[in-house]
Amino acid sequence: MDRTVDVAIIGAGTAGLYSLREVRKVTTNFVVINGGHDGTTCARVGCMPSKVLVQAAEDFHRRTQFNDMGIRGGEQLQIDIPAVLKHVRKLRDNFVGRVLGNVSKLGDKKINGYAEFVEPTVLKVNGQHIQAKKVIIATGSTPVIPQAWQNFEDKILTTDQLFEQEDLPPKMAVLGLGVIGLEIGQALARLGIQLTGIDMLTTIAGLQDPQINQVAIELMQQECSLWLGKAAEIRAEGNQLRVQSGEQSVVVDKVLASLGRRPNLAGLGLEKLGCTLDKNSVPMFNSNTMQIDDLPVFIAGDANGERALLHEASDEGRIAGFNAVHDDTQFFKRKPKFGITFCDPNIVAVGEGWSTLQTRSDIAVGEMNFQPQGRALIMGKNKGLMRVYGQQQTGKLLGAEMIVPKGENLGHLLVWAIQQEMTVFDLLKMTFYHPVVEEGLQNALADLASKVDSHQQTGIPELDYL
Amino acid sequence: MDRTVDVAIIGAGTAGLYSLREVRKVTTNFVVINGGHDGTTCARVGCMPSKVLVQAAEDFHRRTQFNDMGIRGGEQLQIDIPAVLKHVRKLRDNFVGRVLGNVSKLGDKKINGYAEFVEPTVLKVNGQHIQAKKVIIATGSTPVIPQAWQNFEDKILTTDQLFEQEDLPPKMAVLGLGVIGLEIGQALARLGIQLTGIDMLTTIAGLQDPQINQVAIELMQQECSLWLGKAAEIRAEGNQLRVQSGEQSVVVDKVLASLGRRPNLAGLGLEKLGCTLDKNSVPMFNSNTMQIDDLPVFIAGDANGERALLHEASDEGRIAGFNAVHDDTQFFKRKPKFGITFCDPNIVAVGEGWSTLQTRSDIAVGEMNFQPQGRALIMGKNKGLMRVYGQQQTGKLLGAEMIVPKGENLGHLLVWAIQQEMTVFDLLKMTFYHPVVEEGLQNALADLASKVDSHQQTGIPELDYL
Repeated sequence: MDRTVDVAIIGAGTAGLYSLREVRKVTTNFVVINGGHDGTTCARVGCMPSKVLVQAAEDFHRRTQFNDMGIRGGEQLQIDIPAVLKHVRKLRDNFVGRVLGNVSKLGDKKINGYAEFVEPTVLKVNGQHIQAKKVIIATGSTPVIPQAWQNFEDKILTTDQLFEQEDLPPKMAVLGLGVIGLEIGQALARLGIQLTGIDMLTTIAGLQDPQINQVAIELMQQECSLWLGKAAEIRAEGNQLRVQSGEQSVVVDKVLASLGRRPNLAGLGLEKLGCTLDKNSVPMFNSNTMQIDDLPVFIAGDANGERALLHEASDEGRIAGFNAVHDDTQFFKRKPKFGITFCDPNIVAVGEGWSTLQTRSDIAVGEMNFQPQGRALIMGKNKGLMRVYGQQQTGKLLGAEMIVPKGENLGHLLVWAIQQEMTVFDLLKMTFYHPVVEEGLQNALADLASKVDSHQQTGIPELDYL
Repeated sequence: MDRTVDVAIIGAGTAGLYSLREVRKVTTNFVVINGGHDGTTCARVGCMPSKVLVQAAEDFHRRTQFNDMGIRGGEQLQIDIPAVLKHVRKLRDNFVGRVLGNVSKLGDKKINGYAEFVEPTVLKVNGQHIQAKKVIIATGSTPVIPQAWQNFEDKILTTDQLFEQEDLPPKMAVLGLGVIGLEIGQALARLGIQLTGIDMLTTIAGLQDPQINQVAIELMQQECSLWLGKAAEIRAEGNQLRVQSGEQSVVVDKVLASLGRRPNLAGLGLEKLGCTLDKNSVPMFNSNTMQIDDLPVFIAGDANGERALLHEASDEGRIAGFNAVHDDTQFFKRKPKFGITFCDPNIVAVGEGWSTLQTRSDIAVGEMNFQPQGRALIMGKNKGLMRVYGQQQTGKLLGAEMIVPKGENLGHLLVWAIQQEMTVFDLLKMTFYHPVVEEGLQNALADLASKVDSHQQTGIPELDYL
């Protein structure tokens, strides 16, 4: 054995680095093994650069409101896409730099290379063998591209390549309108690219509530073509690509493939663990402990294919790290579901989704159309719909879906409320300033309260007795 | 007696109309007496039109970020101030119209005229006498202008006149940099008006925390001149006004006087109530019942001079209305303090203020500088400071002050937390998405937690055991 450690962490992304925080509280005898680029998916090719692109696109799009407000000359604004992409990379380098700064301090506890299991507690890296009492798999994920499309080479982009482009062409298609495809697709359309968005599903951004999905499709279609419900095929046409979806087809210069991400597990030698794999070849694990079977091996973050979100990866990293350095495996509570698509208006899903709730007979729904919402009107962003779901008898808040301005902020109020098991009546006693979009949430909650059985019969519903 | 009613509500503004909601649940025998314009202060001359002006100014100011982001031609944008003011009035008319719609349905229960007390339960209006079992005073407030300045006539504006202007002149001064003066002053500066802001205090926006005040002054001074700490004097100079503050003086075309608002109580005949008046000639009242002494008279909203905020006026209206129609006077819990100045970045104060807290020895403070905050950097708004105050032993959240981007939204999370008596440890278990400004709040809370005595010793501080 070339080296013996308490914990080996495979992967220096978000999950790996958060697991390190917990490991370090107990031992200094660990290694972090990382193959490929340093820097998290989030900072390099995910959340951060995409939000910079979205911000530039939103600022440029804002000119369409200028005349109404008394700002003249908006029609003369021009977008300089190479400069936008440069700006994206400049901020990205800042964010990646912060991560690299932390990793570089690890010294010889950091090994650059791809790890492979020899046994559950023995890894091979760069030809050397490492014995680890506990191993944490935090190898992240990679965008999916179908085999057939790999012939089209640089005409098919994923988020791994998009932000590296020096320029973007006049016509593009986005294949896959989940969270990533939709927010980047809208941004590209707003930057002046003739954009077609395609998905084989009839829902976008993973929405479950048919009413929210309907409004979201209508709002997005005001800015680009959406072809839903049929799979896409691609064939070369001259120096371009023809993208076909059912009867419809379009010739584009490039395609952004946003078909999801696959855990980076190939080559790890998982067969040496002797554990059960799920249908996606991911080891079965417990999401409250992050442990694989009863092995001394944990799997956290995108690598386990469950909740590909930074705040979940950081929780999973912490849990895996904690359990890797404590003898008794602890079960930790996980957070309510919370997803944001940073399109404009924001699409947000919180708590239990409509697909499960609609099968229950004890659900009340509150609604708020943001068309007349005061502050949204002032912002020139009075579009969208919010639906909040509560338990019929008690008014306990269960979930919500929405496409509304500042949904990302309203979503935090809702997810905190669900985490605290608040009822709609508790919520209506909270403070709502004026004039703010939070009052739109207040309206949705008031609508929900009016449909719940257990109305308060005395006093003022919005106020507590002293 | 010309008319006998259960309840007479004097004033059809926010407080009056919210009291009506509660009164109506019990009786249909009421009158609403309103002198002067219909429509609330908020909708006519307050929150709503000011926010429209602020929005246009912020959108115009945004051009200063365009080149960095890759948007070209921003320097050619022009502001059309008459069009901005028209836009303000158009939206204002929409908001006022919603209020008027409700009031017009009152029919002969609405009396246009100024009420005067003859006895605590007898009012005189338009020469007629009304006997009311209970009376609610909700007469609102009016901007203060010193007597000496009334000679300058239309060169001194208050918010009553500002939004009625057809155009605005090149040079203005704002006297009084409280919430209203500061947000409108910044907006005027951003619309290209050469602006001088003056206050006799050395604090702006009512800030109590010296560090937040310092940062706020620095940020506002990047956009206009601020003269603090000395009272202003005005004298005519040709067709203009010379405004002097200590050694400094400036010649301006118009002045916005934002020196506060005074309750509309003159002419009500309050002496007939036989109640004690405070130093501002406002009747002493109980802010949990809104009752004046043990009289059958209540006072709600701006009229009582206590909390001139719409959400407080609506609570006070509800409380006054409820107690006016119930025999046993109920004491209601009031909300934590919450104030927002809608300048950019937002200035927000929540809960207990620094002036009271600094006298205590058991306070811990968490801080977050928003300069490196990820999402704020992406938005090009990475400026500001947040300070959160907690109880030293327990970490119970007590208050916060900040000047930060999206402070209005972060303030809601904080005020809800204070209302629920959460500790900083409870808060750190809540969900924070990525990348959002809420993570800046998370950092401030983490800093606070590190300074509180009762750190959690086992497990992961951010997660609960299942």
